[in-house]
Amino acid sequence: MPTTIKERVVIASASGAWLTTEDGHRLLDLPAGLWYANIGHGRERIAQAAAKQMTTLETYHLFGIHANRPAIDLAERLRGLVPVADASFILTSGGSDSVEVACKLARRYWQQVGRTRKTVVLSRTGGYHGLHGFGTSIAGLDFNRAGYGTESLIPETARIPLADLAATRTLIERIGPGNVAALVAEPVVGTGGVHPPPDGYLTGLQALCQEFDILLVADEVITGFGRTGEWFASHRWGIEPDLITMAKGITSGYAPLGAVAVSGRVSEPFMSGDDAPIFRQGITYSGHATACAVAMENLDVLEEEDLVARVRALEPVLATAFGSLAESPLVHEVRAIGLMAGVQLLPDVPADEVIRGCRERGVLTRLLAGNALHVCPPFVITPDEIRFAADVIAAALDAVAERTAA
Amino acid sequence: MPTTIKERVVIASASGAWLTTEDGHRLLDLPAGLWYANIGHGRERIAQAAAKQMTTLETYHLFGIHANRPAIDLAERLRGLVPVADASFILTSGGSDSVEVACKLARRYWQQVGRTRKTVVLSRTGGYHGLHGFGTSIAGLDFNRAGYGTESLIPETARIPLADLAATRTLIERIGPGNVAALVAEPVVGTGGVHPPPDGYLTGLQALCQEFDILLVADEVITGFGRTGEWFASHRWGIEPDLITMAKGITSGYAPLGAVAVSGRVSEPFMSGDDAPIFRQGITYSGHATACAVAMENLDVLEEEDLVARVRALEPVLATAFGSLAESPLVHEVRAIGLMAGVQLLPDVPADEVIRGCRERGVLTRLLAGNALHVCPPFVITPDEIRFAADVIAAALDAVAERTAA
Ligand SMILES: Cc1ncc(COP(=O)(O)O)c(C=O)c1O
Ligand SMILES: Cc1ncc(COP(=O)(O)O)c(C=O)c1O
Repeated sequence: MPTTIKERVVIASASGAWLTTEDGHRLLDLPAGLWYANIGHGRERIAQAAAKQMTTLETYHLFGIHANRPAIDLAERLRGLVPVADASFILTSGGSDSVEVACKLARRYWQQVGRTRKTVVLSRTGGYHGLHGFGTSIAGLDFNRAGYGTESLIPETARIPLADLAATRTLIERIGPGNVAALVAEPVVGTGGVHPPPDGYLTGLQALCQEFDILLVADEVITGFGRTGEWFASHRWGIEPDLITMAKGITSGYAPLGAVAVSGRVSEPFMSGDDAPIFRQGITYSGHATACAVAMENLDVLEEEDLVARVRALEPVLATAFGSLAESPLVHEVRAIGLMAGVQLLPDVPADEVIRGCRERGVLTRLLAGNALHVCPPFVITPDEIRFAADVIAAALDAVAERTAA
Repeated sequence: MPTTIKERVVIASASGAWLTTEDGHRLLDLPAGLWYANIGHGRERIAQAAAKQMTTLETYHLFGIHANRPAIDLAERLRGLVPVADASFILTSGGSDSVEVACKLARRYWQQVGRTRKTVVLSRTGGYHGLHGFGTSIAGLDFNRAGYGTESLIPETARIPLADLAATRTLIERIGPGNVAALVAEPVVGTGGVHPPPDGYLTGLQALCQEFDILLVADEVITGFGRTGEWFASHRWGIEPDLITMAKGITSGYAPLGAVAVSGRVSEPFMSGDDAPIFRQGITYSGHATACAVAMENLDVLEEEDLVARVRALEPVLATAFGSLAESPLVHEVRAIGLMAGVQLLPDVPADEVIRGCRERGVLTRLLAGNALHVCPPFVITPDEIRFAADVIAAALDAVAERTAA
């Protein structure tokens, strides 16, 4: 719950890319909720799939020998979608959960194969990996790590620069590669302000990880399920991570669900027969049957409506429409990739006022780190709606520019 | 996903207290899934409530000024149910999530009020608090903390005995009360084998916390929402915690949801006006609208069918039926409270065989720590079904006793 409620925006209903507030305002949902509403809101068929599963079997857990069919089917289907060799899956209820699983598994893996000093988890400056214990510890946005009395709740962490391979190499050599377990990276840094990877950055990062025997964890909680015009950003930039964390687009927000894809290399020590060691992980709702049924239906929609290709087609429309905002004297820079963008305002521009101005003109956006406006619409948005949104932001910026000049 | 699948039990459908496997066996669900199915399976009205909300608005997040009505309503309703003074709520997707929130908030609180050395989180031996970063660190079952290369992922933790107030006092004095932030305790230890609190234990623990200015966190993920015959175990044993973590029974498993009740004392520093410090916490699905609508409907069912009173009425039935199992030469002890019990077998009894024997006779149970069978049925179970379950366990035990004697 927000600590102080000044002007609360209560969303009452939604359909496609549009929201309706309790007091009847229609707003274009530019952040797709929190980067999750890939297929758009109000899909009757998802509700029906959920209700059917809930009536048959709301869920049954996956501990021990127990299972439910939607979880088994979803894991099988995901295996065909991810750029991870010989993948198996651990299902969760969200992105933060997936990060905990990936970081714990990375540390557990190295203990298991006898490289017991490999415990440090690296992450990118500006990165966001949720706010559970591990995610808080590897936060690349310092304010998320601060206030708990120690530098990092889990001490064995360090930050690499946002995108500097040479400095990353130096840092790894200083820490000692023999002490590093994993490197967690968002392919496109999201909450940090939408920073697409420079050319060659992600393959370079993967090469560094291979050279130093560090597990590469791609945090695709935002980029997974089509956001950059491929099923996963790892496809687009040609990397094959050891682990991929995912959530959001896996259900487009209709149910809390996340997953971790685990490569054969990492799962192998825990799969070697009857007395294999156990990776003791799992939450009550790992593989929640209704959430998995929702995910299956969501994947059907993505496939049947060819929405990932639609993102590819809309990418230049979005880049052009929002790119033109860079001409505003209040804008520092616009970064766009796939169907997402960060409109970074100059540091002293009152973003709250711009956001309110957008809302008054029918567009909902919000603030990301670095005074950037959040753009990441549902895939069903139309080219006209994209241009409308950019025009509205331009008008809101103009109004602020006029007021502050006056 | 389980590492080795020997005999998988795939549940296909469920109704009330009964499950049906894919190969058509009917099984009485003695663990209520994983302690969650309080109102029982297959409730059409919950599915309808979910579908209705999903079609209207699957969810809208609670970050910043945004909100959705089911989340607001649920927080308001919970406030009337919990034994926490001036409670506010942070909503999550499960029990592990709630534990992270509570532990982080406890540490953040003491930093905020200037007692910056108070960082250590205590937990009971045998306790289970989920498996995210913080939950793993405070695990009272050592095997859940082991295998990551350090004693505890987050170092500032320590274990108190299962139920020994004098030894707990000594431990706190050794660590120094000025270093201790919080004490996390399940009122009834669940996964650790179902251990009800000895008389006076919980009030004694609360008195210790008050004496040493330690925040008391009651982990009511299992005991919340009626399991011990009161809405919360804290009611039953007359304590008023600073924070209560909850999940499971809040939706009876129909949707992933959890919550943390935060007392006015703890929330106050973060609520003091416009420039109050922020407790930066929140997952994408905090207050998921559909999950909250499911919770509201679940609370309606609990109230309309008076199911908490039903637990009180069934408590002696369960205690008598399962208590009689203590006569078996294979049983060490039976511990029962409310509508839950742990049937602790002698250490060398092959529990897997007993559990399989139960399954063959129509009852599903599973293993808890300490070689105990898990008993925690849906509240809709009948007295006859309770006696049937106990009889089945007795028969399965007899069969094992006969085989091992032969
Ligand atoms: C890249 C990334 N990782 C992890 C998370 C955490 O996911 P959740 O909020 O579902 O726990 C987020 C949430 O925004 C995210 O953007
Ligand atoms: C007392 C207690 N706390 C926390 C948890 C973790 O909850 P979840 O599995 O929903 O993350 C559990 C789960 O069994 C529990 O029993």
